[in-house]
Amino acid sequence: MLTLSSDFGSQYPAAMKGVILQHSDARVTDVTHSLPRQDIRAGAFWCRELLTQFPPAVHVIVVDPGVGTDRAALVVQAGSHILVGPDNGILRPVARKLTSTDEPKQYYRLTVESRASTTFHGRDVFAPAAVTIHERGLDRLVSTPFLTPVDTASLTSLRLPGYQDNVNEYTGSVIAIDNFGNVITSIPGTAVDAARISVNGQSVPFVQAFAAVEPGSALVTTGSHGYLECDVNQGRGECYFDLSTGDMVSIRTDTE
Amino acid sequence: MLTLSSDFGSQYPAAMKGVILQHSDARVTDVTHSLPRQDIRAGAFWCRELLTQFPPAVHVIVVDPGVGTDRAALVVQAGSHILVGPDNGILRPVARKLTSTDEPKQYYRLTVESRASTTFHGRDVFAPAAVTIHERGLDRLVSTPFLTPVDTASLTSLRLPGYQDNVNEYTGSVIAIDNFGNVITSIPGTAVDAARISVNGQSVPFVQAFAAVEPGSALVTTGSHGYLECDVNQGRGECYFDLSTGDMVSIRTDTE
Amino acid sequence: MLTLSSDFGSQYPAAMKGVILQHSDARVTDVTHSLPRQDIRAGAFWCRELLTQFPPAVHVIVVDPGVGTDRAALVVQAGSHILVGPDNGILRPVARKLTSTDEPKQYYRLTVESRASTTFHGRDVFAPAAVTIHERGLDRLVSTPFLTPVDTASLTSLRLPGYQDNVNEYTGSVIAIDNFGNVITSIPGTAVDAARISVNGQSVPFVQAFAAVEPGSALVTTGSHGYLECDVNQGRGECYFDLSTGDMVSIRTDTE
Repeated sequence: MLTLSSDFGSQYPAAMKGVILQHSDARVTDVTHSLPRQDIRAGAFWCRELLTQFPPAVHVIVVDPGVGTDRAALVVQAGSHILVGPDNGILRPVARKLTSTDEPKQYYRLTVESRASTTFHGRDVFAPAAVTIHERGLDRLVSTPFLTPVDTASLTSLRLPGYQDNVNEYTGSVIAIDNFGNVITSIPGTAVDAARISVNGQSVPFVQAFAAVEPGSALVTTGSHGYLECDVNQGRGECYFDLSTGDMVSIRTDTE
Repeated sequence: MLTLSSDFGSQYPAAMKGVILQHSDARVTDVTHSLPRQDIRAGAFWCRELLTQFPPAVHVIVVDPGVGTDRAALVVQAGSHILVGPDNGILRPVARKLTSTDEPKQYYRLTVESRASTTFHGRDVFAPAAVTIHERGLDRLVSTPFLTPVDTASLTSLRLPGYQDNVNEYTGSVIAIDNFGNVITSIPGTAVDAARISVNGQSVPFVQAFAAVEPGSALVTTGSHGYLECDVNQGRGECYFDLSTGDMVSIRTDTE
Repeated sequence: MLTLSSDFGSQYPAAMKGVILQHSDARVTDVTHSLPRQDIRAGAFWCRELLTQFPPAVHVIVVDPGVGTDRAALVVQAGSHILVGPDNGILRPVARKLTSTDEPKQYYRLTVESRASTTFHGRDVFAPAAVTIHERGLDRLVSTPFLTPVDTASLTSLRLPGYQDNVNEYTGSVIAIDNFGNVITSIPGTAVDAARISVNGQSVPFVQAFAAVEPGSALVTTGSHGYLECDVNQGRGECYFDLSTGDMVSIRTDTE
């Protein structure tokens, strides 16, 4: 199986899919093409969370503001998964999550042919590489000029934001905002054991279900990724809490 | 075959799909993930209209404002189709439409495991149940604690809006608005036999094709679902007629 | 394989897919359902660019402002591809591009059954015809009343915009705007050999990669379709250049 993830929106994903189907009868699954535009960090978060739900596959991941520059193209063996995409950090958190501690993780530099366009490597570099790897097998390709092993120290690094525990106050940041407007923070849900908490000073109930508060009311809950989410039942948490991706979030337990 | 319908938008559908593909090589078809957010009635309408086009399958349907509360999870045998989703009424009109009069229709309560998240039962409850049913067969599961037969009288009911015939005036309501802005009413197209009609007092032509009026002009036509639709050729009927889902619509034949 | 392209957006594509799956186990691939609404010219451009990436298939293409009028329904044998859609010109540029000079190209008029709706021929005419052709083969159908050969002279014609070379000034028009806001012109990238050019009098750098300029800065590049594109790195070229589909574009090499 091959999967496709990108920030391409509506039209361009089909070009990647067509290129693959020219060379393979394999299943091709769209994961999402609505990754936040050219936001490498949010793209890494979504791909990490979504691809861990998938069986082993060759996963194309393209959020690529540096397309056409000299940024490298990469292939990663991450346990039983293979990732294909640009060297801008987006593959790193995904590869870490997909690889068990007893499994191999190896990065390869992918040769970009000179006939590739300078604006659409999804179609001209990553999708062709993915289907070649899928059809021929990674092992047969790693000893060719097509794929060159590289040391991770030479690659663009990326870590998703963590959090700090400062005695009754947890500090983290907004990793992503989903399309319901739910604000996903980097603070784990296990950090909270209280009925009310303050988010950057705003006191809201900490509940298990959106519907535990009235429609239109704010809440914090442990979202499906295991992190604290600042939400509004049937509304948009990003507006209520006035938070954007990357903003700092401070969580304090309310004791009154 | 399995199908997926939800109001999840861009990212979350892939999590459901990944969970299924972990356990099955079956075809998984996205029906739509753009159901109006947390609108059970509109979701029921779209699923009813769309799923009747499909061959027998296990259909996951998730519009679920009550996720994480004690609302039940359901599986429905609806003739040769199987539906999986929350007990909030959304499955009822779909099940009625998919089941022929001589076919069985049976509702089952689905056991929700305690390890499921409280915010994403599509990934943690409905998709896993659907693939289990698809792979093992409903018959082998109905005699287990996994699925308990329930009486429909104990379930949340939902009927889509109907219409009334009040001597030359038909009264109904807006079932849904499609993404062209076409206003789909609950009044059947057979109710009208006239060249012009009034919609809540606004006189417009009743025509067979959008292009029977100029671009930008309003019209009423019998839409592809068999209901009267209040539209604007190449424009947005919802704006021209100032109608939203749930609004009352009165149709009167113009005789001048 | 069958593919689906339309301007239907979110809900209606599934109806076409369901109709096909009722009659075939074939692979059905969504190309895009976000073609610009009822814009035949832009639809033809996108389908031409995207479908040339695909292996031979039966391609359903529906941008159909004339649905329900007496416009004809067509099937085209375009080399090893088959196109199905309305006679409004949209199939013409696609068919020309998909057909090699030594391959046959033949247009057929498709009989529309009277029971078809007047508002949704994607579901009632084009998808059923496509799956019939896919399952039975075009050859066995061309000698039946289902498909009647027609002369292209009797069909709606459409040519995508070209360009003119007026001594150091190239004049063309905007073919389409992608969902990043990139303005795709009809002027080939080979027309420019300079570090700066003027677009309708605005001087901008001509570069190979978006990231050759700062985020938020304007540029012209040769896009992935081979045409000049007026873009903003990580922004929206359509806003910066104030251009819409169909607008005239004049490109002049800056020599200072």
